[in-house]
Amino acid sequence: MIKRGQIGRCFDLNTREGIIRVDSSRVFYAFSPDLEPVIKVPPRSILEIETNDCYSNQLVDTGLFVTQIDWSRINPATGPVYVEGAEPGDTLVVKILKIETADEGLLITVPGTGALPDLVREARAGRCYVVGDKVVFRGKVVEARKMIGVIGVATRERTSTGVPGRHGGNLDTRHVTEGSTLYLPVEVEGALFGLGDLHVAMGDGEVCVTGCEVGGKVLLVLDLIKNAAPKWPVLETEDSIYVLVSHEDLSKAVTEAVEIGVKAISRATGLDWHEAYMLASMAMDVEISQVVDPRKTVRIRLPKYLFPHVTDIMKFT
Amino acid sequence: MIKRGQIGRCFDLNTREGIIRVDSSRVFYAFSPDLEPVIKVPPRSILEIETNDCYSNQLVDTGLFVTQIDWSRINPATGPVYVEGAEPGDTLVVKILKIETADEGLLITVPGTGALPDLVREARAGRCYVVGDKVVFRGKVVEARKMIGVIGVATRERTSTGVPGRHGGNLDTRHVTEGSTLYLPVEVEGALFGLGDLHVAMGDGEVCVTGCEVGGKVLLVLDLIKNAAPKWPVLETEDSIYVLVSHEDLSKAVTEAVEIGVKAISRATGLDWHEAYMLASMAMDVEISQVVDPRKTVRIRLPKYLFPHVTDIMKFT
Repeated sequence: MIKRGQIGRCFDLNTREGIIRVDSSRVFYAFSPDLEPVIKVPPRSILEIETNDCYSNQLVDTGLFVTQIDWSRINPATGPVYVEGAEPGDTLVVKILKIETADEGLLITVPGTGALPDLVREARAGRCYVVGDKVVFRGKVVEARKMIGVIGVATRERTSTGVPGRHGGNLDTRHVTEGSTLYLPVEVEGALFGLGDLHVAMGDGEVCVTGCEVGGKVLLVLDLIKNAAPKWPVLETEDSIYVLVSHEDLSKAVTEAVEIGVKAISRATGLDWHEAYMLASMAMDVEISQVVDPRKTVRIRLPKYLFPHVTDIMKFT
Repeated sequence: MIKRGQIGRCFDLNTREGIIRVDSSRVFYAFSPDLEPVIKVPPRSILEIETNDCYSNQLVDTGLFVTQIDWSRINPATGPVYVEGAEPGDTLVVKILKIETADEGLLITVPGTGALPDLVREARAGRCYVVGDKVVFRGKVVEARKMIGVIGVATRERTSTGVPGRHGGNLDTRHVTEGSTLYLPVEVEGALFGLGDLHVAMGDGEVCVTGCEVGGKVLLVLDLIKNAAPKWPVLETEDSIYVLVSHEDLSKAVTEAVEIGVKAISRATGLDWHEAYMLASMAMDVEISQVVDPRKTVRIRLPKYLFPHVTDIMKFT
């Protein structure tokens, strides 16, 4: 069955006809302008991108202990994908259609990491099993909340895939999931998009520094908005618009996110700044994505009933 | 129609028969052990407590400008209510049945306050109108999210009603609403419970320092759990258990909240600490209640599907 979707191309989800596949044999560990693209695609392309787990499968494939991992191979991103016509100042639009994951994953603890770095005594791995829409861990059952941890475009300077920022990267935001659309500011020609670090389950905070970490495949559409870009990643879900702000200091991330939110509300509604501050105080939520990466990620949530068009907010962020 | 509820008393929501009324003529501005009770009630009492708005109605009743407010009369709590048999080490259980509010409220901005204190140039008031389940502000319509800002028990030392803490107080947590149950550690004989600072709408963060501030009435049940108390307020909603931790420093509030959450998960499940850290990383959310009070309030959310009995978590917090 051939479907003609909103994205304006013919594709078939069953045969994968019309879908560009990118396997996980080519990965990178830092976003940078000198990455060699694995493929060049036009805007509106549908891709199925395969990913390794955040440990580059070292714990699964080679049976290493946590202490034996090669830490230079953490958070591999598959790609990069060069998007034809993408130039600095444009927005790369990433519509996430489907996330498929392996049915087993691994969490780890490492002394000195996570939200409680001083309390972690042991390097440990714990296996998590995916059963339908649940995750089983040590006999406890939690709801699966599939998501993408690392997703971004190349930065003008080299940025480790472990770090979140204006380009995306290690956003570790659980709403980056099926049905969501991420808007990323293009910094270099071709955008040089990549992703990895899938989680079957991760809570806000990602407190132990990992979720249920798995390899998998992501089906997505890459598109462009020319000559307009947000300053920070903007995420659109069914009912919300988020702006994702990362900073070494959590409080500073909060302040910058709120400042962006109030300014965007003011410009999108025509309310003056003080009125927008009041409106934000009633209707905008300040939320935490993660507190364990080199920069912490805070998100502000704006309800779509107030701003139905993401571009109303996006262009003012 | 007389109903016999779970709370084990006869009452009639229509005639208010069996419901103890506390009007807003007696308020206090600091929780302390020497407060004079306005009423003494046995456990399992149903009360309807009337509240003034957070400005002690100064802007509404007297028509003052924001700059003319008597700031010593901010955040009045109605009460206190003495609960017979309540002793230090017990838990006061507050089941919130219904919140009724005035149909107009006020937000204000004040230079030097809120999440962006340096950007506020003007002291301003903005009126918000309640229309059904919506709030109208300057022609914009936002969803009403009725909640109680100040709710707590007396502390051994004097604590302003503007400050949140282990005793509750100015928690400014939007899930403190109809249908929720708050568990507060009793610090002084009789608990000396009070509440105020109702909001018709307030986002996580309460970024401008006020929500849509209104007077109103809260229908609730006060009950006791003897000889067991959480260290911080615990809040139970339909699907979640929250622990509410407040600290001058946002990051320290996050750290303390996560530490409590991991320890509680470990003890409630039998998982060892490292395993509980991993489980928390998948299923526990770190959320922000407010970032504008003298202490910031962070909440951790634990899904009830994992911990159906709030006491499993409460006693370990």
